[in-house]
Amino acid sequence: MSDTSPDHFVGVDLGATKILAAVYDMELNLQGKMKLSTKADRGCKEVIDRITRCVHEAIDECDLEPEQICHVGVGVPAAVDPLEGRVIFAPNLNWRDEPLQKDLQSTLKLPVSIENDCNASTIGVYERELDGKPESMLGIFIGTGIGGGIIINRELYSGFNRTAGEIGHTVLDLSGRKSKWGPHGTFETFSGRQSIYARLQEAVDAGKKTSLTELHGPNLANLRSGDLRKAIKRGDELVRAVVHDAARYAGIVCGNMINLLNPEVIALGGGVIEALGKEMMPIIQKTTGEYTLPGVGEGIHLFASKLGDHAGIIGAAAVARRAFARRT
Amino acid sequence: MSDTSPDHFVGVDLGATKILAAVYDMELNLQGKMKLSTKADRGCKEVIDRITRCVHEAIDECDLEPEQICHVGVGVPAAVDPLEGRVIFAPNLNWRDEPLQKDLQSTLKLPVSIENDCNASTIGVYERELDGKPESMLGIFIGTGIGGGIIINRELYSGFNRTAGEIGHTVLDLSGRKSKWGPHGTFETFSGRQSIYARLQEAVDAGKKTSLTELHGPNLANLRSGDLRKAIKRGDELVRAVVHDAARYAGIVCGNMINLLNPEVIALGGGVIEALGKEMMPIIQKTTGEYTLPGVGEGIHLFASKLGDHAGIIGAAAVARRAFARRT
Repeated sequence: MSDTSPDHFVGVDLGATKILAAVYDMELNLQGKMKLSTKADRGCKEVIDRITRCVHEAIDECDLEPEQICHVGVGVPAAVDPLEGRVIFAPNLNWRDEPLQKDLQSTLKLPVSIENDCNASTIGVYERELDGKPESMLGIFIGTGIGGGIIINRELYSGFNRTAGEIGHTVLDLSGRKSKWGPHGTFETFSGRQSIYARLQEAVDAGKKTSLTELHGPNLANLRSGDLRKAIKRGDELVRAVVHDAARYAGIVCGNMINLLNPEVIALGGGVIEALGKEMMPIIQKTTGEYTLPGVGEGIHLFASKLGDHAGIIGAAAVARRAFARRT
Repeated sequence: MSDTSPDHFVGVDLGATKILAAVYDMELNLQGKMKLSTKADRGCKEVIDRITRCVHEAIDECDLEPEQICHVGVGVPAAVDPLEGRVIFAPNLNWRDEPLQKDLQSTLKLPVSIENDCNASTIGVYERELDGKPESMLGIFIGTGIGGGIIINRELYSGFNRTAGEIGHTVLDLSGRKSKWGPHGTFETFSGRQSIYARLQEAVDAGKKTSLTELHGPNLANLRSGDLRKAIKRGDELVRAVVHDAARYAGIVCGNMINLLNPEVIALGGGVIEALGKEMMPIIQKTTGEYTLPGVGEGIHLFASKLGDHAGIIGAAAVARRAFARRT
């Protein structure tokens, strides 16, 4: 019989299309992971079963037993009440008011904590990439949409309704395009992946030239962020200009945030930054400087996370570790 | 001989044109106050002498002795390092790196704390107008310029360089006018008093009609916020439209802040809100709703402070009371 004293954490990144589960040791070193499709259309109960299977497979992959897991953390693309363990609203999963923590504790027979996915990613970057453990940090994650997380006094700051950090929905330029929920010109409508693709599609529809149509034809529905990077390398002027714009607005947001929140660290992550960081970061850094009040940005560290997709699962595991530390 | 056990605080609001000093009891009830012009052009040493005289006159006005003062708090229109007691940069006073706390302690022979004026006003509203003492609050002060203060975990949040809260300098709409320090379309360029006046002047110069010219002629240099309120009451369409615009942008900022920071309370103050609150608040409330993500604004209290000019001195006294509590 194996030694089953609990000395591992599981992090789960629950996405609209895939579930990622990974096992970490006490120092958050990766031991093994597993991926499963989400099948959100089959309903909440089925997704909970699939999370459970994914976690069990990940544990088994590492030759561990469930008894060796201290705590499971789950990052959810949703407004989450982590204290109550409830998903308030997850538009991409079509969930409302789901007691996810309770349900998973009952299927997994392990302690579970849940958190908003961008908050979890912020904690992931904080715990894994920042040695000095700064007092305050802002995480900005640019993927299909844009979300954020705020750390103040070394703890996640979640605000009155526990929904703080929705930086993608702050307005930057009223002349911008309409967001899905109403206002024009939010950060997400300039720099989110969907908006970048929509701008390119509009340009193509308007007869502008881009090398992307050589690969994809006139319908760019199957674009990926990596295609944009390659197009820029080929000297594609349209793609360069659209990505430049997206980076510029990200820089304006960073300047605004230095003026307003003055965090010690701003970390940028998410799929768009992972694929296009090399092209975007110099523009983001330069624009941030232009939009920061003289003097107030000194010593503030702005960087692109190297964790990529892993920020979410490491963060979920870090959420588990923090919850375990509070329990013991 | 009188009983001289210290049981009062002094709050000082140091402005570019006037110094206000007021004496408060332990529960921050006003006992008496004094006003003196600042005479900033005479230099820092002279201003420190004038603050000292103003504080002494306010104490004498209340039939008190300096020995009866526990602590003096000073709100300064500047980037301030409250821990070091230094004014980093005060453009309107033309000060850089002044050890104001040390200097005033030596002239007043009393313990002194200094704070940014909008931070002090935020503390003033928090201590005086909010009974429940919420976890988090955002103060937005719309006067000649626009500043803010952030309370998190019931304490002022000042950020890495201790300059957080500069909400007037966040960008809302790139198509807006140029700010004094560079970027176009910051909150201040839409809703600050100077910008409101500049918009009216431009409209008059372009031949638009307003009742303001009947009082002031074509040069509106001597406008006051109260003139705008009276003009709106007279049915002045130009003034109504410009003030409506200013209120609308304030509402967009409030929506952005609910999405991002999700504070329990947002308090609006400053001279523009004091003079035009009745006209502006309904527009601000409505616009805030339009720019807040569904669900995340529930229960958040947005209101106009009734303290007016007093927020700054009460806040400075509250800063003194907090510092005294930490000392004892």
